[in-house]
Amino acid sequence: MDRSVIFAPDFSKGNGLISAIIQDSKTKQVLMLAFMNNEALQKTLETGKAHFYSRSKGRIWLKGEESGNFQKVKKVLVDCDQDAVILLVNSKPACHTGHYSCFFRELGKKQALKEVSKPVFNPEKAYSKKVKKK
Amino acid sequence: MDRSVIFAPDFSKGNGLISAIIQDSKTKQVLMLAFMNNEALQKTLETGKAHFYSRSKGRIWLKGEESGNFQKVKKVLVDCDQDAVILLVNSKPACHTGHYSCFFRELGKKQALKEVSKPVFNPEKAYSKKVKKK
Repeated sequence: MDRSVIFAPDFSKGNGLISAIIQDSKTKQVLMLAFMNNEALQKTLETGKAHFYSRSKGRIWLKGEESGNFQKVKKVLVDCDQDAVILLVNSKPACHTGHYSCFFRELGKKQALKEVSKPVFNPEKAYSKKVKKK
Repeated sequence: MDRSVIFAPDFSKGNGLISAIIQDSKTKQVLMLAFMNNEALQKTLETGKAHFYSRSKGRIWLKGEESGNFQKVKKVLVDCDQDAVILLVNSKPACHTGHYSCFFRELGKKQALKEVSKPVFNPEKAYSKKVKKK
C-alpha cells in the first residue's frame, strides 16, 4: 500500500504559522526553533535555504541574511498533524548570541539557568555592520 | 564569572505559550513538538512528567494520560529568547498514530509525504477505552 500523501501544512492552529525545529543533520543536536508562514515554507523548499517568519520583526527572514550563517536544508520531516516540521540542516552556528545552538543553557535547581556550551563566534563582529544601520 | 540567571520564560510572543521540543534523551531523536503555558511548565517541573497545553483541547494535558505513555523528563534546555525549551525525556512511543515519533514522514518530490518509520503500537488499543467515552 502506498501511504504517501501530499503535504498539506496546517497553519490554522498557529495564527498562520507552523513550527520549525532546526536540527543538525549530522549530530542531531537541536539548534533552534522558529516559525514559518506559507511563504517562508515555500521559499525554503524552493531555495534549499531555511527561511522563517519572524514574529518580532513581522516579516520573512532568511536565516543568515545578516550573519552569513545560512542553513542548507538536507531533509524535511513532517509531524502527524502537519503543523510542525523538522529541518535537518548543514548549519553554521545558529544563535545570535554566538553559540552553535540557541539551546545553550540548562535548567538547574531553583530554576537557575546554566550555560552548558561556550560561544563559537563573536556576535558583535558577525552582526555589527548591518545591525548598526537599523 | 557566574553566568547563571533565573529562568524567566517569555510567554508574550506565543499568545501565552512557549514551545516545547521533546527529544529522546538517549538517541536525540525528536519525538514531538508541543506548547506549554505557565501552568503546564510548572507541573512538568514539579512532577518530572511532561505536561503541555493543548491548543485544540484548550486545556492542560498530561502526556500519556490516556495511553499511559508518559514522558519522564531528564533534562530541560532553554533557548536564547526563553520562549522555547527542549525536554530530554525517557519516552514511550510519543505519537497518537502509533509511531515512536510524530515526525515519521519525510517530504519528498512534488511535496509527497513518505513514511520513514513504522508504527510501534496499535493506537486503537491504546486509546480506545477513554477515547470512546468522550
